[in-house]
Parts: sequence; structure tokens; C-alpha cells
Amino acid sequence: MEKGGIKENIYYNFENDPYNYVINTFCNRWKFCIIRGIAFDGATRFNRFTKQLPISEKVLTTTLRELVSDGLIQRNVYPEVPVRVEYTLTEAGESLMPLLDLMYQWGWKRMKELDLEIDPLGEMWHGYREKDEALMRNPFKK
Amino acid sequence: MEKGGIKENIYYNFENDPYNYVINTFCNRWKFCIIRGIAFDGATRFNRFTKQLPISEKVLTTTLRELVSDGLIQRNVYPEVPVRVEYTLTEAGESLMPLLDLMYQWGWKRMKELDLEIDPLGEMWHGYREKDEALMRNPFKK
Repeated sequence: MEKGGIKENIYYNFENDPYNYVINTFCNRWKFCIIRGIAFDGATRFNRFTKQLPISEKVLTTTLRELVSDGLIQRNVYPEVPVRVEYTLTEAGESLMPLLDLMYQWGWKRMKELDLEIDPLGEMWHGYREKDEALMRNPFKK
Repeated sequence: MEKGGIKENIYYNFENDPYNYVINTFCNRWKFCIIRGIAFDGATRFNRFTKQLPISEKVLTTTLRELVSDGLIQRNVYPEVPVRVEYTLTEAGESLMPLLDLMYQWGWKRMKELDLEIDPLGEMWHGYREKDEALMRNPFKK
């Protein structure tokens, strides 16, 4: 059978493939970094993400909602004045760490091979460069 | 500084982050499967991809070209009649295997947790289901 010029493989349903699930769940520009960022912080507030990443508030809001809905992060509201909202990883989110580390490692090695410039702050976070704790805790623009 | 409403973090350049490199290099729906497919086959001909994946010839051509240009696969032309063209993995492509396996593993476990349907042919390829060699060698529609 053909659908829009594409042959259907009757023995393989790509929609049900774990690769497709992984791609749909977190292969966008921000989800890796958001999950990794929360893992480093323990708990992260909304404003910290917008300071760390070149992301708009609108896109950040949508992305965080998707990650909550996929069960990878949790939104915690503390009834203080003003209300404090923090994001933490769920168990499923924590289980992504070995995968994210391997992704970073593969990307890092390949970029070295190709002699591409690698961001030094990310290298510190991932243990590929000597750590500057002050900069890592507060890597924000003035 | 602000660019289009997005704050710039002067200490972190996302463009130079290995995550961003990984995402740009192969986070699309097909690249995982194409690389994994070549790894299983050893060498793969163009038509085999279109039979395995619900992909159009146009998108397949572009995707293969990008993978060649990123140095992950190699296009081999054999001067036979008719000319035979096969794709194989480069060393950099081979180096992706542990990452792809971990991605599949994470996706598979998470889909199980969420009680989602998982494609059985992919499970055979990845060793999560008893292998049916005849089906695996020729999983094509009639």
C-alpha cells in the first residue's frame, strides 16, 4: 500500500519504535539542557532557565509544560510570599542522566575531532574542564 | 544584551555546546534508524531503506547526503552493470552505536512503564525479543 507516495512496511511500525519515542520526547534544542540544568541545581526556578539559556519565556513555558506532561520533570509550588515555583526531576527524568552524559561525551569527542569550538562553561559542568565554582553557580549576564 | 526578547548569557554559547551539536547532527526522525539499519546490514542499498522506513525517496536522498556530509556514513559506488551503490558506516558512525543502544534502551523501558505498544521487529533487531531471522532479513511488504 502507498500513502502519499510513501510505501508502507507492513512489518514495521515506526510510530511504535523506541527511537521515535525518544525523538518525540526530548529531541529539541532545549530539553537536554533543561534536564541537565535541573540535575546540576537539584531544583531550578523559572527565571534561572531564562538567564542560562537563549530561550524566550514563551518557548520555555511550553517546553517545561511538555516535560511535566511527559513525566520527566515536576513543578513544585511553595505557598510563600511571593509564591516560589521550582522544577525538579522525576525518577524517569533522573534515569536520563547516563544517556545525556553519553550524548555530551559523543558530541564533545566528535567536535574535538572536527576541531570545532566547544563552550567552556558546559565543559566545566560536565567535568571536561577545571571547575570555576563561582562562575558555575552564577553564570549570568550582569 | 537582548536579541529579539531573548537575553544573552555572556558566559554560555549554546551554539558551541555538544548537546546542540548532537541535536543538529542526527536528531531527526530517520537518522537513528538509518545508521542502526546500516550497522545491522553491514552495507545498505538505497532501495532497502525505502522498503524499511516510511520515508519518501526525496527525504531519504537529503538525509543520506547530510549523513555523508557529517562524516557518519560513506557512499560506495561499484562500477558494475547496473551500477551498485551501497552505504556503510564510517568510524565516526560506528562510534554512535553505544549511544543509539542506550537511546533505544531508555525509550524501550519508558514505553514499557507507560504501557505503550512497542514495534516487535525493532525489538528483534535490538535483542529485546526472540529473533525471527527470515523476517529480519526481509521485512518488506510484498
